[in-house]
Amino acid sequence: MTNLIKFTKMHGAGNDYIYVNTLKYSIDHPEELAIKWSKYHTGIGSDGLVLIGKSPIADFSMRIFNADGSEAMMCGNASRCIGKYLYDNKITEKEDITLDTLSGIKHLHLAVSGDKVSKVTVDMGSPKLEEVLVNGNSENLVSAEITVNNQTYKATAISMGNPHLVIYIDDIEKIDLPVIGPILERHPFFPNRVNVEFAQKIDNKTVRMRVWERGSGITMACGTGACATAVAGSIIGQTERDVEIIMDGGSLNIKWDEQTDRVFMTGEAVTVFEGEITL
Amino acid sequence: MTNLIKFTKMHGAGNDYIYVNTLKYSIDHPEELAIKWSKYHTGIGSDGLVLIGKSPIADFSMRIFNADGSEAMMCGNASRCIGKYLYDNKITEKEDITLDTLSGIKHLHLAVSGDKVSKVTVDMGSPKLEEVLVNGNSENLVSAEITVNNQTYKATAISMGNPHLVIYIDDIEKIDLPVIGPILERHPFFPNRVNVEFAQKIDNKTVRMRVWERGSGITMACGTGACATAVAGSIIGQTERDVEIIMDGGSLNIKWDEQTDRVFMTGEAVTVFEGEITL
Repeated sequence: MTNLIKFTKMHGAGNDYIYVNTLKYSIDHPEELAIKWSKYHTGIGSDGLVLIGKSPIADFSMRIFNADGSEAMMCGNASRCIGKYLYDNKITEKEDITLDTLSGIKHLHLAVSGDKVSKVTVDMGSPKLEEVLVNGNSENLVSAEITVNNQTYKATAISMGNPHLVIYIDDIEKIDLPVIGPILERHPFFPNRVNVEFAQKIDNKTVRMRVWERGSGITMACGTGACATAVAGSIIGQTERDVEIIMDGGSLNIKWDEQTDRVFMTGEAVTVFEGEITL
Repeated sequence: MTNLIKFTKMHGAGNDYIYVNTLKYSIDHPEELAIKWSKYHTGIGSDGLVLIGKSPIADFSMRIFNADGSEAMMCGNASRCIGKYLYDNKITEKEDITLDTLSGIKHLHLAVSGDKVSKVTVDMGSPKLEEVLVNGNSENLVSAEITVNNQTYKATAISMGNPHLVIYIDDIEKIDLPVIGPILERHPFFPNRVNVEFAQKIDNKTVRMRVWERGSGITMACGTGACATAVAGSIIGQTERDVEIIMDGGSLNIKWDEQTDRVFMTGEAVTVFEGEITL
């Protein structure tokens, strides 16, 4: 007997995972499968494996295993894809879905066009400036000077569950991110290290951003980084509270709601292909 | 109307392509699709696209489009996968298949276990020592001295349709291939450049080999390179005419037939998964 598993390859802003519905297919060793299946030449090829399942406390559950087998807490791009997966495959008819993740319950809102999901909004929670530890203290860093390689930047530190350092500059193309990213990530200000975003205001409602992710380096897109960039832009008076963040892998709309203080991320989720693989 | 194409992802020695049966699905712009589908994050992810079709002069035809959209002449790893594809999917019952390629008709022999192909042998043709141009002349290079970075190696030049320079050494781990590979590829001896193989004899029937491919750099495996390595080993008296060549991506058995002067390459072909994608 061969054990055939159906999967879907999806991406959000270029962040691609293999999605499996564990209501239909049981996956016993997701860490091992994530490593094996994520390999490019001999596997399916992906950033990791996402399992969609049942939850006792939400509509569905999401577990994310990175390509190295480690488990991720949460991923905004993956949660958008799950919203599209559940609705497009008629597993749910709801357009508002709660998702049980390792970093708590997340709320998705689906924008439906025809019988398919076109965009998904994820409630990313409230930004916390004081949660980024600066020299071990909960000290707000807003448009504060930070010097790297004899160049001084104005940086704002914001936590969206994970810590970000956002630097608005006039010309993002002048930043040598592979050099400056790792220095800022490990700057002595941040004993727990930070994700680093360089942002350039295009207009009040549009920002170009590039990200250096803590532990990963340059990536195509970062959902929490886009949120932090929008919040920082608003706090320092560069942008409005509802902006488009343009990253290398795609764009996300970020709205920092004034009434609730919550950040809503809206973007596409793309189904690349459906597949079947033998366990 | 959506246009759904079924495909199979297969690899031979780590060389992975997307295989489409054009008897069932018509593919109008394979160059564009090869580029789009080969992308890792937003596509299927592969080394390229292989189209299996009809031929007026052979059992089937094979066309190979690289990930950059260019068309390849021939690929031993891909032709093994085609053999497995045709038999496993019951498109043919033949165990000996002729394949029409841009570099002529190739002969495949399938080893069948149960109702699936376990290994495929490809007739790779006759080696031609004089076809590797040395300083513009058809001059045989057998165990000839070549000096790079003050180190002298004994090299043998063999064409398997494309030119190879094979160097047997005592310890392959001591070779800094990213440094020495490109220098040898563009050595003034070879105006048309060469593929470079470093080989270490394990015993009379086993060779460890690493390859620097002309125009591509280090790759996991190279079918013609494995053939050239086996022929060179036999010519310089290091190995028998029937050897196992162990590369980073896998092993190939190479037999240089004494009677016919033809080189037969035998190896696995692996079906990774089946998929469906919308055009």
